[in-house]
Amino acid sequence: MKIAILPGDGIGPEIVAQAVKVLHVLGESFELETAPVGGAGYAAHGHPLPEATLALAKAADAVLFGAVGDYKYDNLERQFRPEQAILGLRKNLGLFANLRPAILYPELAGASTLKPEVVSGLDILIIRELTGDIYFGQPRGVRECPDGPFKGQREGFDTMRYAEGEIRRIAHVAFQAAQKRDKRLTSVDKANVLETFQFWKDIVTDVHKEYPDVALDHMYVDNAAMQLVRAPKKFDVMVTGNMFGDILSDAAAMLTGSIGMLPSASLDANNKGLYEPSHGSAPDIAGKGIANPLATILSAAMMLRYSLNREEQANRIEGAVKQVLAQGLRTADIHEAGTTLVGTEAMGDAVVKAL
Amino acid sequence: MKIAILPGDGIGPEIVAQAVKVLHVLGESFELETAPVGGAGYAAHGHPLPEATLALAKAADAVLFGAVGDYKYDNLERQFRPEQAILGLRKNLGLFANLRPAILYPELAGASTLKPEVVSGLDILIIRELTGDIYFGQPRGVRECPDGPFKGQREGFDTMRYAEGEIRRIAHVAFQAAQKRDKRLTSVDKANVLETFQFWKDIVTDVHKEYPDVALDHMYVDNAAMQLVRAPKKFDVMVTGNMFGDILSDAAAMLTGSIGMLPSASLDANNKGLYEPSHGSAPDIAGKGIANPLATILSAAMMLRYSLNREEQANRIEGAVKQVLAQGLRTADIHEAGTTLVGTEAMGDAVVKAL
Ligand SMILES: CC(C)[C@H](C(=O)O)[C@@H](O)C(=O)O
Ligand SMILES: CC(C)[C@H](C(=O)O)[C@@H](O)C(=O)O
Repeated sequence: MKIAILPGDGIGPEIVAQAVKVLHVLGESFELETAPVGGAGYAAHGHPLPEATLALAKAADAVLFGAVGDYKYDNLERQFRPEQAILGLRKNLGLFANLRPAILYPELAGASTLKPEVVSGLDILIIRELTGDIYFGQPRGVRECPDGPFKGQREGFDTMRYAEGEIRRIAHVAFQAAQKRDKRLTSVDKANVLETFQFWKDIVTDVHKEYPDVALDHMYVDNAAMQLVRAPKKFDVMVTGNMFGDILSDAAAMLTGSIGMLPSASLDANNKGLYEPSHGSAPDIAGKGIANPLATILSAAMMLRYSLNREEQANRIEGAVKQVLAQGLRTADIHEAGTTLVGTEAMGDAVVKAL
Repeated sequence: MKIAILPGDGIGPEIVAQAVKVLHVLGESFELETAPVGGAGYAAHGHPLPEATLALAKAADAVLFGAVGDYKYDNLERQFRPEQAILGLRKNLGLFANLRPAILYPELAGASTLKPEVVSGLDILIIRELTGDIYFGQPRGVRECPDGPFKGQREGFDTMRYAEGEIRRIAHVAFQAAQKRDKRLTSVDKANVLETFQFWKDIVTDVHKEYPDVALDHMYVDNAAMQLVRAPKKFDVMVTGNMFGDILSDAAAMLTGSIGMLPSASLDANNKGLYEPSHGSAPDIAGKGIANPLATILSAAMMLRYSLNREEQANRIEGAVKQVLAQGLRTADIHEAGTTLVGTEAMGDAVVKAL
């Protein structure tokens, strides 16, 4: 089994190093190969997703990704900016299914800006379609406005679109995920305004026929954003498009107040996947040894489960993370009075020890 | 001065009746004329926005709108559904600037799902562009997918677009609103992915040159959704497009936990406007006399301020609302132990009395 390790920028290298340490301890003979990506890719090879990095990611059975982005690269032309690497990896690897758990460990309920009774024990799974929608739709650009009151002016434009097969395959992923959980799926759309999402709703409704054991409901995206704030624990699994999923999955992550704990998986049709923490590259704290490595370590656990077929190892890692939390160890982002403040390395070591 | 009164469906008629009562008490000689809209429009004339209703709205100096939507109309074809009325009014009246205050009255801090220290005293203003973006962009529909791996399948599609002049005029509204407040404006975009919003960002940056006294920052929509949950009080004025604004303004409203208190204004280029509560038609509690009329009463205050040039009357109404809150009067949606539960009419009467 070959794993591509793409640490990226900012805190990426530090946190990925801890996850690698954890992988080594499992006693599996994984082949790990590292390559630069994002700003580091641009610095090394003039492109955020260098050809060799993409080739490695394609050849690997799974990709462990840190984070990309740093102030230094903010003023590059868009095509060279670090985040293009992640868009390029998703598209080139066909990683259409993004799984974003929003879980609030009971020990960390205090970290949330929401009242403990609203979020304690939160456990929802957001499934975001990741290779379609307005992210990749053509045509797009800046052109002369063709009609209406602004005719002749410049206008920026993009195309939102979802083909039937694209909706079907993500719907299947979502229904199957719901089957393994509380069997409730909320499909988030904007069918009252958008043709794309009326179509989305129709197709999801059709796929539902194959999953009679799952309760499906449909919710408008504006209402979903409200319900996430009002009563997030009512949700089990949510499925939505790329753009709405970008917004809702981040909002849901922030509800927990401990985004440094949240992993993610981005899967293709054969369960090959890219695994990354839900948080960003945090360049402001990079190199200080204080970043929380647990989201990355938990991403490695998801990798073992979904791409490497090592459910038991995944469970072991998740158990070890729970154990270090129970021991009261906390990195700065989740630290509170009465708990023990530790750095990135010490947290990684504690997980290794718990294993 | 002529005011079109469009009560709509669900609790609309009850809450609008209270706002009308308040208007009558001001001693101004407004001419009020009522017409059916939404489901009520469909029931009366076979269309959610009957011609006579649209004509009245066009002829009036301002429109006071209740809410639309009821279970009865859920299965109509999309063009006949109640919410088409609101889209039609926005487009036909050129109401491009939606002002959505998210204010949390100190007395109501307990109603929020967020911790009091995170939201108490919250006072942000979200300005949402309302007649452009993917809401109205053409082409849109369901077609045969023209290319890519899903070629030949059906696909739903829509067009996102913003012309330069559309962005300029909403940016001016936003900068001027910020000038009257804390002089801080956050423009929300997704410039890292969408051409429309890279263009948006460029134009807003350009308009900023005319408002050197306002501090402008740019934020991605996913991050904005997170920051609204994490530290909403950091915002002063936010401006964004129609689609992102739909999601963020509802999320911001829900942060307060008292969406029954939040008014909104939708303005054209000459400050003619449509005023409506931020909440919906709540058909489940319609006719029970328990709905909160304050958002509608506060919408009438916004109408006096923005369209009817009666700043003082607007202040009087807002003061009266604060007074009834201070008196401990609460409708069911914001009721808590130690306060006095009142119904819709009694709440309206209390505001009248405070005036
Ligand atoms: C960096 C950006 C292009 C990306 C996205 O919008 O998908 C990010 O926000 C994410 O959610 O992974
Ligand atoms: C009813 C719907 C079309 C509308 C919108 O999406 O604009 C509503 O959600 C709103 O925000 O006023």
